[in-house]
Amino acid sequence: MTGSRPPQQEQNDLTPNAAHRLRAALAAPRLTRAMGSHSPLSARLAEEAGFDVVWSSGLEISATAGVPDAHILAMGECLDAAADLASAVDIPVLADCDSGFGNVNNVIHMVRSYEARGVAGVCIEDKQFPKLNSFIEGNQDLAPVDDFAGKIRAASETRTDMVVVARLEALISGQGMAGALRRADIYERAGADALLIHSKRKDPGEVFAVREAYRGDLPVIVVPTTYNQVTVEELEQRGFAMAIYANQALRSSIRAMRETLTRIMRDGTTVNVEPELAPLKEIFDLQRMPQMLEQQERYESLGRELAEAAQ
Amino acid sequence: MTGSRPPQQEQNDLTPNAAHRLRAALAAPRLTRAMGSHSPLSARLAEEAGFDVVWSSGLEISATAGVPDAHILAMGECLDAAADLASAVDIPVLADCDSGFGNVNNVIHMVRSYEARGVAGVCIEDKQFPKLNSFIEGNQDLAPVDDFAGKIRAASETRTDMVVVARLEALISGQGMAGALRRADIYERAGADALLIHSKRKDPGEVFAVREAYRGDLPVIVVPTTYNQVTVEELEQRGFAMAIYANQALRSSIRAMRETLTRIMRDGTTVNVEPELAPLKEIFDLQRMPQMLEQQERYESLGRELAEAAQ
Amino acid sequence: MTGSRPPQQEQNDLTPNAAHRLRAALAAPRLTRAMGSHSPLSARLAEEAGFDVVWSSGLEISATAGVPDAHILAMGECLDAAADLASAVDIPVLADCDSGFGNVNNVIHMVRSYEARGVAGVCIEDKQFPKLNSFIEGNQDLAPVDDFAGKIRAASETRTDMVVVARLEALISGQGMAGALRRADIYERAGADALLIHSKRKDPGEVFAVREAYRGDLPVIVVPTTYNQVTVEELEQRGFAMAIYANQALRSSIRAMRETLTRIMRDGTTVNVEPELAPLKEIFDLQRMPQMLEQQERYESLGRELAEAAQ
Amino acid sequence: MTGSRPPQQEQNDLTPNAAHRLRAALAAPRLTRAMGSHSPLSARLAEEAGFDVVWSSGLEISATAGVPDAHILAMGECLDAAADLASAVDIPVLADCDSGFGNVNNVIHMVRSYEARGVAGVCIEDKQFPKLNSFIEGNQDLAPVDDFAGKIRAASETRTDMVVVARLEALISGQGMAGALRRADIYERAGADALLIHSKRKDPGEVFAVREAYRGDLPVIVVPTTYNQVTVEELEQRGFAMAIYANQALRSSIRAMRETLTRIMRDGTTVNVEPELAPLKEIFDLQRMPQMLEQQERYESLGRELAEAAQ
Repeated sequence: MTGSRPPQQEQNDLTPNAAHRLRAALAAPRLTRAMGSHSPLSARLAEEAGFDVVWSSGLEISATAGVPDAHILAMGECLDAAADLASAVDIPVLADCDSGFGNVNNVIHMVRSYEARGVAGVCIEDKQFPKLNSFIEGNQDLAPVDDFAGKIRAASETRTDMVVVARLEALISGQGMAGALRRADIYERAGADALLIHSKRKDPGEVFAVREAYRGDLPVIVVPTTYNQVTVEELEQRGFAMAIYANQALRSSIRAMRETLTRIMRDGTTVNVEPELAPLKEIFDLQRMPQMLEQQERYESLGRELAEAAQ
Repeated sequence: MTGSRPPQQEQNDLTPNAAHRLRAALAAPRLTRAMGSHSPLSARLAEEAGFDVVWSSGLEISATAGVPDAHILAMGECLDAAADLASAVDIPVLADCDSGFGNVNNVIHMVRSYEARGVAGVCIEDKQFPKLNSFIEGNQDLAPVDDFAGKIRAASETRTDMVVVARLEALISGQGMAGALRRADIYERAGADALLIHSKRKDPGEVFAVREAYRGDLPVIVVPTTYNQVTVEELEQRGFAMAIYANQALRSSIRAMRETLTRIMRDGTTVNVEPELAPLKEIFDLQRMPQMLEQQERYESLGRELAEAAQ
Repeated sequence: MTGSRPPQQEQNDLTPNAAHRLRAALAAPRLTRAMGSHSPLSARLAEEAGFDVVWSSGLEISATAGVPDAHILAMGECLDAAADLASAVDIPVLADCDSGFGNVNNVIHMVRSYEARGVAGVCIEDKQFPKLNSFIEGNQDLAPVDDFAGKIRAASETRTDMVVVARLEALISGQGMAGALRRADIYERAGADALLIHSKRKDPGEVFAVREAYRGDLPVIVVPTTYNQVTVEELEQRGFAMAIYANQALRSSIRAMRETLTRIMRDGTTVNVEPELAPLKEIFDLQRMPQMLEQQERYESLGRELAEAAQ
Repeated sequence: MTGSRPPQQEQNDLTPNAAHRLRAALAAPRLTRAMGSHSPLSARLAEEAGFDVVWSSGLEISATAGVPDAHILAMGECLDAAADLASAVDIPVLADCDSGFGNVNNVIHMVRSYEARGVAGVCIEDKQFPKLNSFIEGNQDLAPVDDFAGKIRAASETRTDMVVVARLEALISGQGMAGALRRADIYERAGADALLIHSKRKDPGEVFAVREAYRGDLPVIVVPTTYNQVTVEELEQRGFAMAIYANQALRSSIRAMRETLTRIMRDGTTVNVEPELAPLKEIFDLQRMPQMLEQQERYESLGRELAEAAQ
């Protein structure tokens, strides 16, 4: 009945919000799999491939913007990128937030801003600010533990639902397992909801050892970039809660674009690369073009009916 | 007890959200008063003065940006401005959204975007796109009624809680009371939550007449810019739900800045204007600087305690 | 000599600006090749592969943002995207500007804004606003010729150096060669700097015929998306000035990411896809990380010398 | 003659750019007067009142955004604000850039970004990062002199024309005249184009003393906020190059808005405040609405002539 008003929406949305779903995924026995993204489009591809979570990757986002992963992009740019991912997919987004973009005040501002934009979780790391990507040789000094504990507590008390992940850089900075465990304990008491233990070793022995020695209650997350032979089954058996595949999507796109562009230049035509390209229709589908045309038709037609009913 | 984890936050926020509060205000017998704003700072001044609602004014925002109120600013800029107001105050924000920034698809994108950013309501007007400010002589043609009814229905079915206001420009465009009432009826059946009846007459007779003749159930809003002698009491008695004071804050700031700057140039010193300026302390308070220093002290101190407890 | 002031920079930059270089490329006998981009990173890959020009593609940018290519993104978002490309590469950027984002006033605002941000050229098409991607079935009506001629004249008189390209949609909308040629003539007299003739046929016969029949003086541009067997040599011989490869980079990245993500999900590890990924070092190079570390070392060291010289 | 193409624009703009004009103003014997702004609108009011330069004030911009002046806004937000001012006025814009938004790498990124957006000059101060507004009690420690000298050298070698101002906080931080002079000398050799000496004393004695003792060649700038009785004539006689009135415009607008809003609430009508408000026409003029309507009429009419000439 077009002539009557549409039924009132339910005023309370009972679907658990993105933060609750991320929290539940971290608590589940199954390993949660997160895929690094750099655009709403790549986030949709991750969702369609079956990943549970989108990782709003600082490395991917800075690389896509053509700038070093060294705090050239500040909170505003990272927030916009993460919020755009959150708008594009139904799975939760966990955002890489470097060391929190400054001091305690910046962390509080960050938590409010990310939560207001629908991001399910934020991850901050215990490095000095401005930071440098963990895989680059250079100053990888840790933040003083009291500073970082203050940030975690501030984040924890500021957020309503959002998940606060404390990322431990102790292994990267050479402080070893003892340093990692001491900080894990402090960050847990500071209010972290999960720990991320980062390593750049070729094998996972180091993170396995930390996981085994850690006696706390928090879910533990790993980023198997350098120890890429590790499997989901192993990580699950070892008791990890989540694996983040941090940059593979971007790296595959760079390889593909470089080859395609080189070949178009060399061949003087695109006909030879065409079989290796997604068809235009696939792009339109990823843009939700068919749904848009449907909704346009639907509401333009309803508008005409409403106008005619008033004659 | 610093050593223990902070208490878990309540997972469900029972405070009614901004959209619910705006809805309740429109339903209440008391006249709701909205003040036009162009910046988070001016929104805070409106909140402190006791207004119930902030009106994210298209005219104020475009004027502040130094561009005509004629769709030079598009949705993105208007959305950012409205969302910034919503972040700055506790009272609900109702956003002036011109004619919805395009067709039905743009309206749907707009509703999702504004709701995701915490704006309590959107107001769209039945004018052609691109639009021209209603007080300027020029093309003020109305949108076809079926087009606009389709937009209202689309907005109404897309939003979860947000209030959808349909603004009637029939009086401005010379279609008189009959045109206004016919459209009011159609927009109500299309799903509008409230009507805004606009007029540029020097007296309120025209809007009083529409209010009296309208037999529907929706709350009716007015914008007493040109008929500025009208009082809150009169509007309440006549059955209006809300008055929007759309641009007085900006106009007072322009007058004051012009006089102050002229005088500084003429005097060659600021000492003479100083008594008419808000003191720096007032700015710091509006920025919430004292709260920031307090929170910084608090969390830096908690951080030290957490680190020491681990020794 | 650290202790002395650095030599004064030349105050006038004699390098021709990006707009001049684009103008020269369009006037040269050699076919200019433009590659569609959606991010600073993909623009750098196009530059490194040897392309002459970056095409800031509306389709690529909207797809990357996860929204339909139908004026959901407005001028602000398209401008930011194009300006980001222009900052990332040394080759000129030509920006796809839909139908100019509104009426004549929007075109003037657009021209000023794009020129101020270092974009070398803008391309506007003679379609209705809001638009729909040319490859989608739906309303593809042309803009009235007088409206569009007014926009071209406005753009031409507003810009200082920037190249103004008029894109002809007559073939797409079914107006045939006669319609295309009549509009070509009018847009040339209106002040366009180049013409883009668009076609969605599987073979280039249609655009060849227009090129041959066109008697004016403007360089003519083609977009060989559907007639992808055409070669650079053919286009050059037929007298075209530029070919735009509008979306191949994005389409290759989508294919690659989809395959990579699917395989990571299926294998439960990334080790098998690793050989098909660009190494991390390649990302760091594209981010200009080594240059950043060098400049940091250089200026921190110069700072120490300056401070010591003052002892 | 509508039928003929418009005359080609001059390809080289001989008007000195904004940076050159700022440089010339600083070198002139007359005192240059800069007015702090927080919006394109307030910048236009400063230009109309006769000021020579717009100061893109960190305090005004953060206050307008409703956040503390303590690096909550990062480079992106400050850049956008300054670029918006530069687009709105013909007089040069000098931008308050805190301590350069990070380390040497951030300074280089900042200089490129601000210059690309048409800002005439940047001012960076020798304080720790994140910073706190100079008038607030709290940590006001200076940056190590070698760090800051490195930043100035990096800025100086990165910019083409833009003016680099080094702001000395030695008096604020209690290091006295000796500290200020030593740093002035180092920053001059590092490549600064001008010095800004900041003070929060109630009288100008301290800055007069530094100006007199300074033996270098750079123009010296002051900000007479607290010593507001000082006159243009005195500053000119003492050899200062520029005075920045940093926040008076904002402070006058706050006072006026607060009084106006309070009165509207109390009176229940706007009729009593109306005489103290700028009329709507004044807003339309500041938005350049009449020029927009003229240009629209002009180009729509030219478009019709071009189309008719082709019949």
